[in-house]
Amino acid sequence: MTTKEKLHDIIFESDTPKGKTFDVLLLWAIIISVSVVMLESVASIRLEYGNELRILEWTFTIIFSIEYLVRLWVVKKPLEYVFSFYGIIDLLSVIPTYLALVITGPQYLIVIRTIRLIRVFRVLKMTRFLGEANQLRKAMEASRHKITIFIIVVMSIVTIMGTAMYLIEGPEYGFTSIPKGVYWAIVTLTTVGYGDIAPSTPLGQVLAAIIMIMGYAIIAVPTGIVTAEITRQSLGGLSQKTCRNCSREGHDMNSKFCKYCGSEL
Amino acid sequence: MTTKEKLHDIIFESDTPKGKTFDVLLLWAIIISVSVVMLESVASIRLEYGNELRILEWTFTIIFSIEYLVRLWVVKKPLEYVFSFYGIIDLLSVIPTYLALVITGPQYLIVIRTIRLIRVFRVLKMTRFLGEANQLRKAMEASRHKITIFIIVVMSIVTIMGTAMYLIEGPEYGFTSIPKGVYWAIVTLTTVGYGDIAPSTPLGQVLAAIIMIMGYAIIAVPTGIVTAEITRQSLGGLSQKTCRNCSREGHDMNSKFCKYCGSEL
Amino acid sequence: MTTKEKLHDIIFESDTPKGKTFDVLLLWAIIISVSVVMLESVASIRLEYGNELRILEWTFTIIFSIEYLVRLWVVKKPLEYVFSFYGIIDLLSVIPTYLALVITGPQYLIVIRTIRLIRVFRVLKMTRFLGEANQLRKAMEASRHKITIFIIVVMSIVTIMGTAMYLIEGPEYGFTSIPKGVYWAIVTLTTVGYGDIAPSTPLGQVLAAIIMIMGYAIIAVPTGIVTAEITRQSLGGLSQKTCRNCSREGHDMNSKFCKYCGSEL
Amino acid sequence: MTTKEKLHDIIFESDTPKGKTFDVLLLWAIIISVSVVMLESVASIRLEYGNELRILEWTFTIIFSIEYLVRLWVVKKPLEYVFSFYGIIDLLSVIPTYLALVITGPQYLIVIRTIRLIRVFRVLKMTRFLGEANQLRKAMEASRHKITIFIIVVMSIVTIMGTAMYLIEGPEYGFTSIPKGVYWAIVTLTTVGYGDIAPSTPLGQVLAAIIMIMGYAIIAVPTGIVTAEITRQSLGGLSQKTCRNCSREGHDMNSKFCKYCGSEL
Repeated sequence: MTTKEKLHDIIFESDTPKGKTFDVLLLWAIIISVSVVMLESVASIRLEYGNELRILEWTFTIIFSIEYLVRLWVVKKPLEYVFSFYGIIDLLSVIPTYLALVITGPQYLIVIRTIRLIRVFRVLKMTRFLGEANQLRKAMEASRHKITIFIIVVMSIVTIMGTAMYLIEGPEYGFTSIPKGVYWAIVTLTTVGYGDIAPSTPLGQVLAAIIMIMGYAIIAVPTGIVTAEITRQSLGGLSQKTCRNCSREGHDMNSKFCKYCGSEL
Repeated sequence: MTTKEKLHDIIFESDTPKGKTFDVLLLWAIIISVSVVMLESVASIRLEYGNELRILEWTFTIIFSIEYLVRLWVVKKPLEYVFSFYGIIDLLSVIPTYLALVITGPQYLIVIRTIRLIRVFRVLKMTRFLGEANQLRKAMEASRHKITIFIIVVMSIVTIMGTAMYLIEGPEYGFTSIPKGVYWAIVTLTTVGYGDIAPSTPLGQVLAAIIMIMGYAIIAVPTGIVTAEITRQSLGGLSQKTCRNCSREGHDMNSKFCKYCGSEL
Repeated sequence: MTTKEKLHDIIFESDTPKGKTFDVLLLWAIIISVSVVMLESVASIRLEYGNELRILEWTFTIIFSIEYLVRLWVVKKPLEYVFSFYGIIDLLSVIPTYLALVITGPQYLIVIRTIRLIRVFRVLKMTRFLGEANQLRKAMEASRHKITIFIIVVMSIVTIMGTAMYLIEGPEYGFTSIPKGVYWAIVTLTTVGYGDIAPSTPLGQVLAAIIMIMGYAIIAVPTGIVTAEITRQSLGGLSQKTCRNCSREGHDMNSKFCKYCGSEL
Repeated sequence: MTTKEKLHDIIFESDTPKGKTFDVLLLWAIIISVSVVMLESVASIRLEYGNELRILEWTFTIIFSIEYLVRLWVVKKPLEYVFSFYGIIDLLSVIPTYLALVITGPQYLIVIRTIRLIRVFRVLKMTRFLGEANQLRKAMEASRHKITIFIIVVMSIVTIMGTAMYLIEGPEYGFTSIPKGVYWAIVTLTTVGYGDIAPSTPLGQVLAAIIMIMGYAIIAVPTGIVTAEITRQSLGGLSQKTCRNCSREGHDMNSKFCKYCGSEL
């Protein structure tokens, strides 16, 4: 087993003790480096510890850069890794610090390192977790059509309601334009309710009350969709078996025969 | 096939490539024209691009007017179309711009063009989508009675709570009238919480806390109703067919063979 | 059939055309009279239409008083009616106006007339509605224990969190006392979020963020409890059959034999 | 039975009338003593009734101290009790008052006495309640993995969104640092919406609207997870037993006889 192969196992696998240690260290490095960037944005902390934070940031960036290059070296198909989801995120995690040498601002973009935390699933009991994540993902996918309809309906409601409020309340009460009215309608329908814009006229308040009651009823819909899907999946346990005859999936847990072609499972 | 028939297929159907292209173009025209009106309402944009936006608005209105007239011409029963849901929406989508020539204000009403976006279902895998929309609609309808009861109860609560707050807090803390108190109670119960009116006296805050905890419990009710209905329907797909061989039930909607004994359903 | 009996049927029943008409008129009278009181509380309307509104209010109060006396006369057991739920509400609906002759303020209490709207179920397809309301009530009752636990847990959380915020933020940031802190914790946990009191210190904001994420998870609990109960009821359809042998209820829809004593249903 | 044994039964058990009386008195003492501390933190009340409240607080602390010592005396394994959950809470409930003699502030920490209210389950129909609490706890535990994934996803979203808002809006609109932006993102995603920080630029409002719609969809996930779990558990009571006569499943937990064929289970 060459050094390259050993490094590959440590960096890309997490079954061995060394691989696991590497992944845990990596996760902590990600969390600390993101915290460093967040703290650096606080004016009072930047004034006092600016230099220390910048040194830390560069240290982490160099570590991650070396890690990226090593990954490129040890992986069998470098190009495939470069254009994979993980490869792109790994690259985007180090670029902003270098870019910040040329222009100001982009160093904050390194918070996209947060996405690298997805690797946490590899350290924890991966299979178990991925199964659960998969179930959630499937529930979301199965609800795709219903959620699309739902969003179109919500969008139509907020557009019409926002315009109505612009006509009723008008610029003197903060509804300076239709987009602002639509923004208010979204803030209200989702029950966020900042209060930066709020209806002041009696008619506006009546309309607002109607939108709120609607929001109350509407929030039940996505919840209902997702819940029904998760319930169906956890009761049905559809996803495990595949028919050996027609290769179709989606059989119930208690199935003995394929529901599509009738052959034994 | 006459020109009239060809046009009918393009405008009213979306199975043919031409029909689909027409529908997609129409959807984009609706989205852009609604955006134009929304942008026009922003004071700074109106000052700079007012003329361009008005020209665009008129262009779209004329296109939609021609489309409406062509629809009238090619459809077999014009009157039926005029008084159908789609016919009324199509007409209401062009009227406001013409009305705006006589009086000011109504041009913003053309955001009801948004409703025309419902045609999106025709372009996308229609049947599939309509089936899902139908399921949602059925779930809502089946919950109609429960939701009516729920709304009456909510209305009684906010009326009584709003009055109580008017008596407790009074005009000096922003609760200038009972309707205002009721408006506040709705804002609170739906967890929107603008903060434009908020209780200031200790007793008022105790009452507000009670309403919030109630709202917390109450929001569970419509969610529960809708979820139970959607779950029942998506599970209900199961209960219709019975196997002629083993007499067992609980097959999925898409089953062709019994999952217990493998015989054809 | 005497006049008394005829009146009884009109006032207490809603099966006959006359009885239904009476109930519909009564409902409208309640809605209008409550609206009158609400409008009277608006200062600008009171100034202009004060007299008219007061005349209307007295008219409705006299009508309801006569109705109450007639109910007392035609009912078989007057005392039972007086101390029944409906009887008490009917009396409380007229008293405040008379009380307002002696002391100021109580006339607003007549909004408790709103509770009389529960009679609406008698006019609509009553049985159907009552069945649904019953199902909701049963779902709530079956969840009683879980909801009690839930409320005790929520109360403990807000007490401890509110105190923590009082110690962290202190009076200078609006957290003038522990009860105020608890009020803030309730406002936050229920996601109402007025913003009248909001954390200003970094530590306070971290704690607030934790409470919000907790609130996010916690709101799932009552929803889950109620939904599971409604789902179980609408799937199970437990409540209809009673065992002729042991008189116990709670059998599933598909039961053929009593699950308690084994005798045929 | 010695005095020690008698005291043990009174203090640690709640089956006997005396034990129940003791527990009920204890609960009231806890509620009143916590209320006393809360009231003491209100400046106006402290000024007027400060002495009375302090006397009450000391009375309760001495009562609870004696109770703690008696518990230590009567329990069979004192050390086990001291380090048990209840033992630690019992000790923490009395310490703050004594600490307040030396330093200021900690007397408010005695609100952790609230946790002692968990003993309420012993007074009420304990087994029933504990069963329900257990079911809730199990539902939460079974959802542990899904909730962990959910929290990681939410944390990543708020970190990235908070940074984006800091870059878009900047310090001049209140987003003074990335942590502040993340705080804002949490306030928005959880639909709390204080309004202490709210987007002011058009781009910021568009991003805020996207976060709100996401929050709307995301809140459906924990609800779905918990609901599905509770539903599965309350339905799951069904799936354990099989009839020895007809081999059918789906009996309720409390069934003694098969609901299909009537034979004993």
